[in-house]
Amino acid sequence: MIHYAVEKRGQEIWLAERRYEPRFALKTESVFAQCNGYMGVRASHGLSVLDGRRGMFIAGFFNRAYEEESTELVNCPDVTEYLLKLDGEVVYPDRASILGYERRLNIQTGELFNKIRLKLDSGLELEVTDRRFASMEDQHLFVQKIIITPLNGTIQKGELVTGINGQQTNSGVSHFHKIDCRVYEKQFLHVTGYLPEDTLSVLMDCSYSNSGEDTKEFLLKRRGVFGRYTFHTTEGESWNYEKYVYIQKEEDRTELEFQKEKLEEYRRSGYESAFGKHHEKMRSIWKQAEIQIQGATLEEDAAIKFAQYHLIGMMPWHRSDCSIAAKGLTGEGYKGHVFWDTEIFINPFFLYTFPEEARNLLEFRYRGLDAARDKAEAYGYQGAMFPWEAAKTGKEETPLYAALNIHTGKANKVWSGIKEHHVTADIIYAIWQYYTMTGDEDFMQNCGYEMIFEAAAFWTSRARWDEARGCYVIEDTIGPDEYTEHIDNNAYTNYMARYCINLAVTLAEKLERNQPRLYQELCQKLNLQQYMKGWVDVADKIYLPVPDTNLIIPQDDTFLTKKRLTNIEKYKKSQIKQAVLLDYSRDEIVNMQVLKQADVVMLLNLFPHMFPEEVVKKNVLFYEERTIHDSSLSYCAHAQACASIGQIELAWEFFKRCLVIDLDENPNDSTDGIHAASLGGIWNCVVFGFAGINYEDGQLNISPKMPEHWKEMQCYIQVHGHEIQVRVSNQEVALKRGDGWEQPLPVRINGKVFILEDSLKVMI
Amino acid sequence: MIHYAVEKRGQEIWLAERRYEPRFALKTESVFAQCNGYMGVRASHGLSVLDGRRGMFIAGFFNRAYEEESTELVNCPDVTEYLLKLDGEVVYPDRASILGYERRLNIQTGELFNKIRLKLDSGLELEVTDRRFASMEDQHLFVQKIIITPLNGTIQKGELVTGINGQQTNSGVSHFHKIDCRVYEKQFLHVTGYLPEDTLSVLMDCSYSNSGEDTKEFLLKRRGVFGRYTFHTTEGESWNYEKYVYIQKEEDRTELEFQKEKLEEYRRSGYESAFGKHHEKMRSIWKQAEIQIQGATLEEDAAIKFAQYHLIGMMPWHRSDCSIAAKGLTGEGYKGHVFWDTEIFINPFFLYTFPEEARNLLEFRYRGLDAARDKAEAYGYQGAMFPWEAAKTGKEETPLYAALNIHTGKANKVWSGIKEHHVTADIIYAIWQYYTMTGDEDFMQNCGYEMIFEAAAFWTSRARWDEARGCYVIEDTIGPDEYTEHIDNNAYTNYMARYCINLAVTLAEKLERNQPRLYQELCQKLNLQQYMKGWVDVADKIYLPVPDTNLIIPQDDTFLTKKRLTNIEKYKKSQIKQAVLLDYSRDEIVNMQVLKQADVVMLLNLFPHMFPEEVVKKNVLFYEERTIHDSSLSYCAHAQACASIGQIELAWEFFKRCLVIDLDENPNDSTDGIHAASLGGIWNCVVFGFAGINYEDGQLNISPKMPEHWKEMQCYIQVHGHEIQVRVSNQEVALKRGDGWEQPLPVRINGKVFILEDSLKVMI
Repeated sequence: MIHYAVEKRGQEIWLAERRYEPRFALKTESVFAQCNGYMGVRASHGLSVLDGRRGMFIAGFFNRAYEEESTELVNCPDVTEYLLKLDGEVVYPDRASILGYERRLNIQTGELFNKIRLKLDSGLELEVTDRRFASMEDQHLFVQKIIITPLNGTIQKGELVTGINGQQTNSGVSHFHKIDCRVYEKQFLHVTGYLPEDTLSVLMDCSYSNSGEDTKEFLLKRRGVFGRYTFHTTEGESWNYEKYVYIQKEEDRTELEFQKEKLEEYRRSGYESAFGKHHEKMRSIWKQAEIQIQGATLEEDAAIKFAQYHLIGMMPWHRSDCSIAAKGLTGEGYKGHVFWDTEIFINPFFLYTFPEEARNLLEFRYRGLDAARDKAEAYGYQGAMFPWEAAKTGKEETPLYAALNIHTGKANKVWSGIKEHHVTADIIYAIWQYYTMTGDEDFMQNCGYEMIFEAAAFWTSRARWDEARGCYVIEDTIGPDEYTEHIDNNAYTNYMARYCINLAVTLAEKLERNQPRLYQELCQKLNLQQYMKGWVDVADKIYLPVPDTNLIIPQDDTFLTKKRLTNIEKYKKSQIKQAVLLDYSRDEIVNMQVLKQADVVMLLNLFPHMFPEEVVKKNVLFYEERTIHDSSLSYCAHAQACASIGQIELAWEFFKRCLVIDLDENPNDSTDGIHAASLGGIWNCVVFGFAGINYEDGQLNISPKMPEHWKEMQCYIQVHGHEIQVRVSNQEVALKRGDGWEQPLPVRINGKVFILEDSLKVMI
Repeated sequence: MIHYAVEKRGQEIWLAERRYEPRFALKTESVFAQCNGYMGVRASHGLSVLDGRRGMFIAGFFNRAYEEESTELVNCPDVTEYLLKLDGEVVYPDRASILGYERRLNIQTGELFNKIRLKLDSGLELEVTDRRFASMEDQHLFVQKIIITPLNGTIQKGELVTGINGQQTNSGVSHFHKIDCRVYEKQFLHVTGYLPEDTLSVLMDCSYSNSGEDTKEFLLKRRGVFGRYTFHTTEGESWNYEKYVYIQKEEDRTELEFQKEKLEEYRRSGYESAFGKHHEKMRSIWKQAEIQIQGATLEEDAAIKFAQYHLIGMMPWHRSDCSIAAKGLTGEGYKGHVFWDTEIFINPFFLYTFPEEARNLLEFRYRGLDAARDKAEAYGYQGAMFPWEAAKTGKEETPLYAALNIHTGKANKVWSGIKEHHVTADIIYAIWQYYTMTGDEDFMQNCGYEMIFEAAAFWTSRARWDEARGCYVIEDTIGPDEYTEHIDNNAYTNYMARYCINLAVTLAEKLERNQPRLYQELCQKLNLQQYMKGWVDVADKIYLPVPDTNLIIPQDDTFLTKKRLTNIEKYKKSQIKQAVLLDYSRDEIVNMQVLKQADVVMLLNLFPHMFPEEVVKKNVLFYEERTIHDSSLSYCAHAQACASIGQIELAWEFFKRCLVIDLDENPNDSTDGIHAASLGGIWNCVVFGFAGINYEDGQLNISPKMPEHWKEMQCYIQVHGHEIQVRVSNQEVALKRGDGWEQPLPVRINGKVFILEDSLKVMI
């Protein structure tokens, strides 16, 4: 169930909170956040309230405050808060009577609309409206409009105090070693925040209705500068205040004069004009991204679009110097780090819809290649070993130790940065998906080949020849299911490793044949020829867990020998994530057949045609029974897997749960940010799972597995730089190519290959 | 007018806030703070409210967070807050209906008593009582008791979450580079905060009424650890929770086992027992400190005792490694720095009442002597130049630049650290007061002589021979009146400089005669003989502004030539401090006869017998007319001065204003801490001003100038290690010596000398 009301107004869909719900404050701040890929601004109330945690996060703006802390996305100066004092009384929603309330997020435009009617102690009734957006037309721009209307009397002396507040911290940790505050031309407020390796410039201009008697003055406080604007207004007459904020980190910094001109231009044209430009840009994005589903309920439609809104808002468009964090730009959770989530769960949306952005995400990994080489070397491996958690660079950012165990005083080692290696294959998987779907030779020549070869070198050195078993093994690792640490031959990891090495071998041979000069260059740089023999050997002889007599692929060497967790249903139903860890120690968990999240199932999703259908089916059901879904990555994976095996009802059950992962009725979810990977997973379920669209090794496949009530789905996908309109139902697949195609495209529909020329319609 | 209600309950006086007044939140947090000299805990509400700023400050616990920030008293982890959730509803006073409210400070014991009756949305009516004190018996101990009583129903599931929260910052600046959180024996919470040069250990134990079904669990959050305690209680039945917190910085750190034992002992004995021990200690302090005034109103009595409560609470008893800050331990104001306030305004209370503490304050300066020598050398002077602002060491902590001017972007230079030199004489004045009143040879031999000689060396090098005038001049300085910067021959400074040098010359000669060995040691160490000739010359020939034909002592060389500020009354009456700076630039102010605070008047207070009565009178009235009293140090100085010239009514006017400097009806005063110097000034007014008690150069003088309605005043003063009970009225002075005296003591009463043997009563 979606906790929020879903409202359709004209063509636009809003999520709405219809009454003041402080319990949901932190969650709604994340869910309703204004994000344009450059900045994410939590949807905190403008007026100060008891609950909530303000936050503005700028993509790639990281810092490590102290040696003992991790590098984290900095909580930047706040620009959303305002203090409103009416004839001496400060207006606080928590202290007033709330006569009316609505707070809405437009999931197409990302505009926040907040209207509250209050009755003050003085008897004055008042309406305060607050609208905001982070512009997609100019990603440095944040705009907020405040409208104050007395409903039953006069405001003799109104005071609004607002500005730029640099006292924000990341939960009590400050990052800026210096914050300079300025006022230019008695008009622009400016704050510069200094980190050791970056700066942030926040410039603000404003306009407001002026009766002539109104005054403004500027206040300097520690780490912040504010304007105090007075006004006078009478019953029913609105006083309007518009705030234009221009935000740039060091590398994007333009001349201040240029920024001022920009802001003046926006200010003179007004909120609606700036919003109009933003809206136009958003429309063009949606044109490419929109999924139309006939038969879907408004709630389903809203939740899918909501996922896309945040996917769009978390992408640092047109740049590859930063990537997508596990919470996007909506909160402090996971410290803004980049995980495998980006390649496996989030990249597909961009690959199919905005492939140039998928390239940017992969280029970000290429920028970290040297650091990945260093990590491999530090651990005694060859090639490149990508970080489990990345921030701005490719350096491993996973802390070596978790917080002290409060009872023992010992810090538990965090093994994922040391032992969870599959990310180095996940990235390669995404590269190959990208290349086969786009044919982007340029990327491959500049980044792709090198990364693939280096990953192969890593995996080759990572595998150990086991004389007794007569094969290569990968020991002491962690697969996607993090409830089993230090296991040998994790199926997901071993298959992915072989995939990597095989791909490298194939590409090396192909390059030698077709692009000898490039091949020679790479040989010299990477010492390919020395390594390649080893690759072939490992690829040939790596141990791959095969289905046992019950057709089950063992998750690892010992998984099937372990006992089951008898009362797993208790934890599957628990509102509290990882409740199982309250009853069992980690050591006990490791020794049971209990999964935090999809593991073998992930493998089946990535390679839907690797195993016979019967094997896929058996394994999906077998492992689901043993999975608590304690990770937000799990429901979407299982939904997609169940759809692919035709278990539509079960798929739907999982899909419903993943669809509301940020929108459900649990106020404690998403408080420190939305679940970026799961939002990507929603798109994957819809497109890969239900529409059954899948591009594998240069082959577009479509095998619809639509839920009963979804009559037809339409979306656009990009193949080799060109658009295909796809319409699917359980009865028909219709394809239409965009302009500019030259070659006919073979498409396998429910297993049978057709040739798409201009258009194609196949009954199934 | 005192903003707070004054309540007498038995023998004890309370200041009370009788209704919930959020406007006064910040002020009342300072004013009602629990301070025992080791810690100061702002009197924030336990339940979270919209207004207020929590703070715990530990004497001498300083840090400089960034190179660009100043060293400041660290806002330490909070232990006062608790979250209360009753059957799912979080209790917030701001969101509930407030049915009853009282919040009181016992100004004798420092106990905070807070009782609030709330009606929740659920209909439940509830009383929450919160009592706290910082123990004077064991200065590391802070105790809080919370009592929760449902008034009209049952609490099925109550939850109290409280603990140690290290997310506190100094207005957005964090100091601890690491915070470790622990739970010992599933009972004690422990937080260790690490600064580069210090640590803070906060250990907490608790007890609570337990129905048997109640549970507790521990929560680790970033930078904090908390207990969650559940309870069940029915109408009229109270649930009690007591929290015992043990706080130690590195240098005081005892074994954790010892601390645990201490806390367990306190916990087992309970709140009342711990409070009883604290109360006993406070009683013994008050026995020495109390001033009884017959005829004083309850409000006057309360305000005087309030001043003493905070004086007692700001003194880091029994140690000299830290001193008293301008805001005591009650807020972030002035960053916890130590000014001349300590020697001139605060030290007298301790000198007359607890002389060993006066010595500690002076020893703190001695510890900073090397740094003062360095400062002198850095500025090209000889001897020692004490810092205008000190923190933990004697290093100058005054920032070189103020915050950027927000309009020009230029940082104004802060001249006080560079040019306000009189502190180096103020300290010497306090030393000599201390020595003459206590006869503490040990202090003089170990600290005093050296400081006096080094100060004399400084002043000698600071003065310049003016050939034209034929005298030594002190140019380009700042006197106590900071509205005149860069002036020459400030009367206060020149007289104090000469005082210093003269004292050094006299003492050097006396030492050479009486303690030749010590003299030789000091000669060698300080190169006395080389300098002394210069001292005699400067002392003889330094320019001292003398009364002009109108008997006015010129504040500096040019003051009397400047024009007056015509509309000074406007600024004298202004609620806003330093409002004159909004209308005039600093340059304009410097060129007018307008004073921020007492300057020549301060000189007359320190040396009441230096000038004929007529001169004193003329000058006090002349300068008061030109003084805005924009410093909290000004009213008390003028009150004392007016009393001394017999202008009792005028004295009373000023006294009334200084008496309520922290208690008045302006909610914006004292928000970042109480005014420590002014509280000392209240004591000075009462004892030096109205009682007319004064100890000058070994002579006790008493010349009562009591306000009409004060019939009689009684206090105790300490002279040469012995107590004298002093009772004065405008008609009579009665003295009684404590035990242990041997020598008769000459006392000058209204100018006539009497000899005090056991007791003495003189009609006047």
